[in-house]
Amino acid sequence: MTKKTTIYDIAKKLNITAATVSRALNNNPRISKNTRELVLATAAKMNYKQNRLALALKSGKSKNVGVVVPYINRNFFSSVIRGIEDELYPKGYHVIISQTHEDKDRELKIIQNLLNAQVDGILLSTSYTSEEKEKLDSVLKKSTPFIFFDRKPNIPDISSVTIDDYQGGFDATKHLIDQGCKKIAHFYVSNGLELYKNRLQGYKNALLENGLEFKPEYIIPLKSDIEAGMEAAKALMKLPEPPDAIFSSTDNGLLGAVKYLQDLSIKIPEDFCVVGFSNEPFTQFMNPSISSVDQSPVEMGRMAAKVFLEQMDNDQSIKIHKKVVLPIKLVVRKSSSRKS
Amino acid sequence: MTKKTTIYDIAKKLNITAATVSRALNNNPRISKNTRELVLATAAKMNYKQNRLALALKSGKSKNVGVVVPYINRNFFSSVIRGIEDELYPKGYHVIISQTHEDKDRELKIIQNLLNAQVDGILLSTSYTSEEKEKLDSVLKKSTPFIFFDRKPNIPDISSVTIDDYQGGFDATKHLIDQGCKKIAHFYVSNGLELYKNRLQGYKNALLENGLEFKPEYIIPLKSDIEAGMEAAKALMKLPEPPDAIFSSTDNGLLGAVKYLQDLSIKIPEDFCVVGFSNEPFTQFMNPSISSVDQSPVEMGRMAAKVFLEQMDNDQSIKIHKKVVLPIKLVVRKSSSRKS
Repeated sequence: MTKKTTIYDIAKKLNITAATVSRALNNNPRISKNTRELVLATAAKMNYKQNRLALALKSGKSKNVGVVVPYINRNFFSSVIRGIEDELYPKGYHVIISQTHEDKDRELKIIQNLLNAQVDGILLSTSYTSEEKEKLDSVLKKSTPFIFFDRKPNIPDISSVTIDDYQGGFDATKHLIDQGCKKIAHFYVSNGLELYKNRLQGYKNALLENGLEFKPEYIIPLKSDIEAGMEAAKALMKLPEPPDAIFSSTDNGLLGAVKYLQDLSIKIPEDFCVVGFSNEPFTQFMNPSISSVDQSPVEMGRMAAKVFLEQMDNDQSIKIHKKVVLPIKLVVRKSSSRKS
Repeated sequence: MTKKTTIYDIAKKLNITAATVSRALNNNPRISKNTRELVLATAAKMNYKQNRLALALKSGKSKNVGVVVPYINRNFFSSVIRGIEDELYPKGYHVIISQTHEDKDRELKIIQNLLNAQVDGILLSTSYTSEEKEKLDSVLKKSTPFIFFDRKPNIPDISSVTIDDYQGGFDATKHLIDQGCKKIAHFYVSNGLELYKNRLQGYKNALLENGLEFKPEYIIPLKSDIEAGMEAAKALMKLPEPPDAIFSSTDNGLLGAVKYLQDLSIKIPEDFCVVGFSNEPFTQFMNPSISSVDQSPVEMGRMAAKVFLEQMDNDQSIKIHKKVVLPIKLVVRKSSSRKS
């Protein structure tokens, strides 16, 4: 592999300054026709390729947009990304994706890297909680637009697109009550993010408004993975008074729980009802199919992209802060359908 | 948002050339101590941030690696990416991901964009077939290392990490024969990629070597999605002589097929056996759990990253072409377990 020709090489060859070479290549009127032609001919001879990023460094526009998510392999996040791409690709933007694996140090490094790479904007689903929001201060102060989606800390002056998580928790729980469930447990994702607290609050209020007791032992904190769900179900079924339903903040958690319940020959939905959150595609192909709260991820992605484009369309000296909250939709399937 | 300070702004302010500013900022010994201090002080005053990409443009190293996949939301690809990240992140590389949605024009644009963004290498699972391989010529000629994984066209001088797809097709079919299946259909992903042809060839040879007839009407070409699998199963079951097993080149295709068979009250594995390919996580949680060929995606990603690092560790004037073929492993579950 041969070293790339730079403007410094051309400058050296012609014994002129790199700035002159750069101006000549960019058709700057301050450069004479003769010099320009000489530079262009030499650049061609030396196989110089002016790259778009070098231009971006000067213009401040790279036409790249960074998207940062915890995991790319959750249907929710990949669908949000799909929505972002659908909106930005026709406008000539390239979407470059990074995943944090919920590692906060790594998230910050990824953001710094994207800023260094001169992206035009960052669309971000963060793992930072409201308590840790100061750690994002240094990057949020940059002139690059940030749009948070789904996961965001409570910061007043940011743009964000989220769903109504409280309502999701409320509707899922209310639905279970309507199906005759009286002892409803909740899988709570315990990473400190606002959105899971909001779902928990919705669950709690649905119980209280319908005359059911809120029992702390029915709240199982877990990470959103399959094995954790199995362990959580096990813990619940060993309680002196086991529950008759689970509302889980994560579909993945339910996968393991349903498997465990079926191994115990507990009939779903006859003996036990479950409702998940995210409407991951596998929920409709499970046996029984699983009810879940849909988060309209593609629409969320499209909306986040639109908020970014709105910022770009405006005078860049104007900072726009826009918060959009999208509605949720409970998708009822067999796992919670006792009544027709 | 204020415009970023560039070396041109500093040069103008001090009435010196941009090249001098650049050299001063990079501690070039050709610049006097006085000039350097003046430039540094002015840069600090003007809030100039020397960004890593500007440095990369000069050094030719960005510490960014581009990963290009058809879809980020297939467990196979997200697991490969995980493997790549596991290997590259500790070495200080940032992995930036792009998805093509199997759109070839888009794939080429994404590659061009990554090359423009000065990535140090591109790890790629292409949608280009062997017949179209010339279309990749222009990018493969660049000095940036390319490592293909899983999906690659037949090009002699490239680096690649793949699995033994032929063996996967052979082993899956042989297993179905061993379980007593006599009329084995095959879901063939018909996008022209070598790897699917290899799986088909493995299927065919397993039939022939075991005295079973190869029937073209049992080969159903499909795209790797759930709905297509349902339609494909429908078509098979309407044949005068319907099959008693399916070996599918895609787990997603099986999802729809199993649902269709179950709707017809066909018992799996008693009346009908199925084996998929990729070992997507949902296969173990389906009812019945689905046998599938595991492709060791994390190992594939790690290996692709190692091939890249090997190239980087060497003198960049040496081009290394390394082809690695990883073994497959058939994971037998309930969907094809008639005998203990």
